[in-house]
Amino acid sequence: MDAVKFEKNKLVLLDQTKLPVEVTFVECHDYRCVADAIKSMKVRGAPAIGVAAAFGLVLAGFEYRNSLKDEFLIKMKEAATQLKQTRPTAVNLFWAIDRMLKILEEKNLTVNDYLQELENEAKIIQNEDLAMNIKMGEFGQELIPHGANILTHCNAGALATAGFGTALGVIRAAFNKGKVKMIYVDETRPLLQGSRLTAFELMEDGMPVTLIADNMAAYFMQQGKIDCVIVGADRIAANGDVANKIGTYGLAVLAKYHSIPFYVAAPKSTFDLSLNSGQAIPIEERNPDEIKKIGNEWIAPKKVKVINPAFDVTPHELITAIITDAGILRPSYKENIKGMFSHGY
Amino acid sequence: MDAVKFEKNKLVLLDQTKLPVEVTFVECHDYRCVADAIKSMKVRGAPAIGVAAAFGLVLAGFEYRNSLKDEFLIKMKEAATQLKQTRPTAVNLFWAIDRMLKILEEKNLTVNDYLQELENEAKIIQNEDLAMNIKMGEFGQELIPHGANILTHCNAGALATAGFGTALGVIRAAFNKGKVKMIYVDETRPLLQGSRLTAFELMEDGMPVTLIADNMAAYFMQQGKIDCVIVGADRIAANGDVANKIGTYGLAVLAKYHSIPFYVAAPKSTFDLSLNSGQAIPIEERNPDEIKKIGNEWIAPKKVKVINPAFDVTPHELITAIITDAGILRPSYKENIKGMFSHGY
Repeated sequence: MDAVKFEKNKLVLLDQTKLPVEVTFVECHDYRCVADAIKSMKVRGAPAIGVAAAFGLVLAGFEYRNSLKDEFLIKMKEAATQLKQTRPTAVNLFWAIDRMLKILEEKNLTVNDYLQELENEAKIIQNEDLAMNIKMGEFGQELIPHGANILTHCNAGALATAGFGTALGVIRAAFNKGKVKMIYVDETRPLLQGSRLTAFELMEDGMPVTLIADNMAAYFMQQGKIDCVIVGADRIAANGDVANKIGTYGLAVLAKYHSIPFYVAAPKSTFDLSLNSGQAIPIEERNPDEIKKIGNEWIAPKKVKVINPAFDVTPHELITAIITDAGILRPSYKENIKGMFSHGY
Repeated sequence: MDAVKFEKNKLVLLDQTKLPVEVTFVECHDYRCVADAIKSMKVRGAPAIGVAAAFGLVLAGFEYRNSLKDEFLIKMKEAATQLKQTRPTAVNLFWAIDRMLKILEEKNLTVNDYLQELENEAKIIQNEDLAMNIKMGEFGQELIPHGANILTHCNAGALATAGFGTALGVIRAAFNKGKVKMIYVDETRPLLQGSRLTAFELMEDGMPVTLIADNMAAYFMQQGKIDCVIVGADRIAANGDVANKIGTYGLAVLAKYHSIPFYVAAPKSTFDLSLNSGQAIPIEERNPDEIKKIGNEWIAPKKVKVINPAFDVTPHELITAIITDAGILRPSYKENIKGMFSHGY
């Protein structure tokens, strides 16, 4: 079940807002539909929205294929700008779009040749992501002890990527080695990616899952039921600070208090070396109704004030290791991240 | 709007599972109905279930009023046992029932005189609870700084007590002194007592409320938005360990990490001196469907394994002070709790 699948002239997205009750797909024939799907979180997860946006630009290319080259380039930039405005926090979105724009900016081709190159590049981004996840799984599973009880938050799985997953990729690789006893899954309010997506994805693959409410994580840590925490990331600053789904920071503090290792799994596309620290990462604030309603049911007073940040930033000092496709990073992160990128990437 | 109201021969309970969408009442004419309402959390909150159970025994008395005295006493004990089996964690339930049983055990009266005494005792328990909450408010508001941003969890308000509230009683008293800038309310999964009850109750009284998801508390602490945390309690052991709604322990750890004072407000009826530490407090585990469904809507795979503890235990070392109707307790709790009870209560 692919989160993002490109077929001749259309992008097919698994509608993740409907899972696990319904398995339905959205077919996008233009980039506006892709932008909408990203904004409304039909497709979500930092790597997956990067891949979707790249294919969004492929669809934009088809739309403008009959334009003259100059106009084509202007229109493509407009489409890229619109796709970038969908969500602010995950850097993979900007990273993927910028890779696509680079072709338009650096190569001097006919419109038709641009189309071919763009489609190739989007497919490469997708395939690379899958390959990076598999590598991360290989590296990361080394950190998982035998008989591990692992806690994860949100969905950093196949559904959030081009396949296999980041945090869930590591868990999947450890499970394949027979190391995983239980995966505790935070439901992840407000949008319930844990209960709707992660529990669903892991159960589909036959892995052992226990679903808990977010506020129960500390209880299970206190009881000695959690051996490590693994999460994904939406953006990692040059010093190793990690933006990820709201609730991640609290888990990192709780893990520290209970002396439980706290791991982040993310491909190199999630690093943003232009930011010195996590304080500079923009945090998306989403619609208050996500907290006040579930489906059509009101679960709070209609007029209550709500603040609904979608992400938080975990300072690097709370992170035991960052699992990347180039290997496992440990403190000092600033130096080791710099090293990873300077060794030619 | 009283959570528990005794009227001639019936107990009227505000159905808290329907708030804030519907304001409806359950009328109980026998103790079984009261037991059901406690179990299904139509009435909830440690002090309120104590009051409700006491009136449940009044209703049992009416039911058995035509029995001979020996049979009456046997039937009343059976009713008390059933009422005690509704929920295991909050000690106020057992405390209130035992106060009622004491009359039957220690006094030698006619059945009719027992009825009168039982009704009087239940009303005293109710009135005392309200009085204790007002006292706690007076003592506790001294701890609240001017312009305070306060975080609370679950509902420890008028709806959880005979009126005014424990944690919310302190907040209410501080608000009346003009000290409260904002009350951040955790929604409190799975049953959403924060969004359904606390937000509703505070808004009804014109207080400033910001509703957040449970996993956002750490983020607001990190941003310096929280000056103190105040929660209620379901049972407090002799050493000051506190059982309260699941999620409380995590908040206490987070508060410690951020050097934010963490206060518990509870009347003397919540203390259980028979337990040396919180490890001995039984933790209720509730139906998995509370996490898998909201109303009739499934929000998780139907077959997923869930663990749903309703409470956790916060070790006394994480608690800055315990606000009681006899004054403010600070460490060392063991000695100070002992002192409070030995000064004649």
